[in-house]
Amino acid sequence: MTVELICVGTELLLGNIVNTNAAYLAEKCAGLGLSCYYQTVVGDNAQRLAETLQAAVKRSDIVILSGGLGPTEDDLTKEVAAKVMDRELVEDAVSRAYIENYFASRNTEPTENNWKQAMMPQGGIILPNPNGTAPGVIIADDTAHVVLLPGPPHELKPMFENYVIPYINKLEPGVISSQTVKVCGIGESRVETLLQDLIDGQENPTLATYAKPGEVHIRVTAKAEGEKEARKLIKPLVKEIKSRMGNHVYTTDEEVTLEKAVVDLLVANELTVTCAESCTGGLLSGRLINVSGVSQVYKSGYVTYSNKAKRKLLGVKKSTLEKHGAVSRQTAEEMARGLAAVAKSDVAVAVTGVAGPDGGTEEKPVGLVYIACSVKGEVTVQEYHFSGNRQIIREATVSAALVLMRSCILEYFSEITFGKKK
Amino acid sequence: MTVELICVGTELLLGNIVNTNAAYLAEKCAGLGLSCYYQTVVGDNAQRLAETLQAAVKRSDIVILSGGLGPTEDDLTKEVAAKVMDRELVEDAVSRAYIENYFASRNTEPTENNWKQAMMPQGGIILPNPNGTAPGVIIADDTAHVVLLPGPPHELKPMFENYVIPYINKLEPGVISSQTVKVCGIGESRVETLLQDLIDGQENPTLATYAKPGEVHIRVTAKAEGEKEARKLIKPLVKEIKSRMGNHVYTTDEEVTLEKAVVDLLVANELTVTCAESCTGGLLSGRLINVSGVSQVYKSGYVTYSNKAKRKLLGVKKSTLEKHGAVSRQTAEEMARGLAAVAKSDVAVAVTGVAGPDGGTEEKPVGLVYIACSVKGEVTVQEYHFSGNRQIIREATVSAALVLMRSCILEYFSEITFGKKK
Repeated sequence: MTVELICVGTELLLGNIVNTNAAYLAEKCAGLGLSCYYQTVVGDNAQRLAETLQAAVKRSDIVILSGGLGPTEDDLTKEVAAKVMDRELVEDAVSRAYIENYFASRNTEPTENNWKQAMMPQGGIILPNPNGTAPGVIIADDTAHVVLLPGPPHELKPMFENYVIPYINKLEPGVISSQTVKVCGIGESRVETLLQDLIDGQENPTLATYAKPGEVHIRVTAKAEGEKEARKLIKPLVKEIKSRMGNHVYTTDEEVTLEKAVVDLLVANELTVTCAESCTGGLLSGRLINVSGVSQVYKSGYVTYSNKAKRKLLGVKKSTLEKHGAVSRQTAEEMARGLAAVAKSDVAVAVTGVAGPDGGTEEKPVGLVYIACSVKGEVTVQEYHFSGNRQIIREATVSAALVLMRSCILEYFSEITFGKKK
Repeated sequence: MTVELICVGTELLLGNIVNTNAAYLAEKCAGLGLSCYYQTVVGDNAQRLAETLQAAVKRSDIVILSGGLGPTEDDLTKEVAAKVMDRELVEDAVSRAYIENYFASRNTEPTENNWKQAMMPQGGIILPNPNGTAPGVIIADDTAHVVLLPGPPHELKPMFENYVIPYINKLEPGVISSQTVKVCGIGESRVETLLQDLIDGQENPTLATYAKPGEVHIRVTAKAEGEKEARKLIKPLVKEIKSRMGNHVYTTDEEVTLEKAVVDLLVANELTVTCAESCTGGLLSGRLINVSGVSQVYKSGYVTYSNKAKRKLLGVKKSTLEKHGAVSRQTAEEMARGLAAVAKSDVAVAVTGVAGPDGGTEEKPVGLVYIACSVKGEVTVQEYHFSGNRQIIREATVSAALVLMRSCILEYFSEITFGKKK
């Protein structure tokens, strides 16, 4: 079955608020096995809303509207939907009693227009709203099921979960399930090239790639009668993707971020970690520390923005800074070595670069970054060239540092495994 | 003129991501004086995208599409737009050269499908993309102006600001001008209460408030024949708002962020600054260091996540940690005092808190945060109660720290001015 979302509200059209209801409803509907092809935002305007709803009921099985159920004159979603679905508005006794109680329990008087909220399309299924005064309603006929929900997320979400999901589940048996393979250290185009034959041949399950800073997410989605059958369709494709992506795969768990994967790797190998940051100024530590439970491996870190701080806190040699400059392979390496020693940490990551917009030269342009990673004294230094504004360069640097940390740790242990070191 | 937004992406229809591009574009378009009546989300499907775009160009003067400009087969916005606007796709030499350089500077090879990004609708105006490989394009005819932008926000935003705004400004005689009064340390409802009569009576100029983490932006927008006339309308209202908001106003300059305002205040008063962070783990330093030129005032900082790091690096007393705990007014104060001494810095900010999801107790719940700010040895400690997930709490903490720094510095100098200290 197909579903379509219509979010009603001038504040959305003006960009005053971000449309989180659409993301919430879309994700829930995908999970219910519904195909969503359109989301529309319209203002509180009867004609445009009516036209949008008319188009929607023609092309979709279920239409979910949010917003415009309030008591004011602006709120006209119910009136428009009743007209489009050819229903009269009649007073609903239960809704009227609910509104009476709602205000009585708050010791306030309803205003005249609050009673508007007790008027309901004839034959509609009323959805109670324990978190506000506007009930929801479902109006169904042979062409479509039209679901009207209030706009505030804390009213919409429980109403959707308590009433709309059971209603939809009865309409169509079957589920949609998906799994994401997350890879890093490889670009989206390269991923697609490696998976091209799988992408071309897709039907059920389907496969889609999503580029994120420093990583790519590959999502596999299947439709089936039940969760178990869907999983069965997904499993072999995920296995194939993992085998093609090799070491680039850092997780197949939806909840695991790149920083979480790095922290998990540190925890699993009983390694402590520390960072010394120049151009990123704390963002790398900040991202690692976003992982709950990082305290097992991360104890302290340094922001060494000035040359003096690099010398004083990390022991970078004055001669190195003078000869090669603060943004150099040599300085990055000395930062990492000094950091490992001062913080007594197994893994030490040092970052230095030109984040711009000032400070670039022909020899060392804006975007030039060196990252050094020491794993038990074995130091790898990488040179990067990023583009974008100061913030983008710094965020790209943080992602690159996480990718480098992961590969250095894996490399270190694979060398142990293959007997190159004891 | 009317504008309409079409955001293209299956990930939006599946609810994988929240549509922040729509909110951004809607806000910018409102600021340009355009009326936006529709926003639509469609997937990477040629037929549905074509139908949506056909309807849009019929009813709106400007249609802005975002997403689907990437190198993969899924990406077909450009192909569909070219067809709807009746244009051939031809290779654009500049775009091809740009892609060549982009990959050469990264020492990687473009894949075959990257060249697709150099194919452009004939007669289109190419919009350069310094932050990615997909250029944007504007295709215009008698019926509509169709603007194609890449989906990633860090590519879309600078492209919109650098190329699309000037383009739109040329389409309509008369100008819309706006100015934003940015305030901090005061909530949105309080701001609205203080400005209610101005909000009620608005016509030209108009006034709108936007809540951001830790701050509120009050935007004044005027329509007039020329920039000068628009400025003339805006000026008295901005003056009135500034007088009502008092010290909460940190800037009226669109480009100035809260961290930039704090850094400017430090520079103006010749104060050095440093941070010691526990739960925020470097994000506060990271945000200050996002200000270009911060090196004048920021030299070094510390991430003191473990108790040992707080003791060793900042000299927090063992007895304080044992008696009051790491998340306490006392620990925050000792962190700030120790930090000011060790970093020899005029301003020293220390942050400690329970960011969750674990680690909360009845006495010290998740969201409890202490921030201490020392200005030349004068220490202020504030207690905060934030809600949300780990990341939200940490970001709210960073914003609160910036607000506290600003007010402590202002307070310190106002006391000097009023002779309370020399």
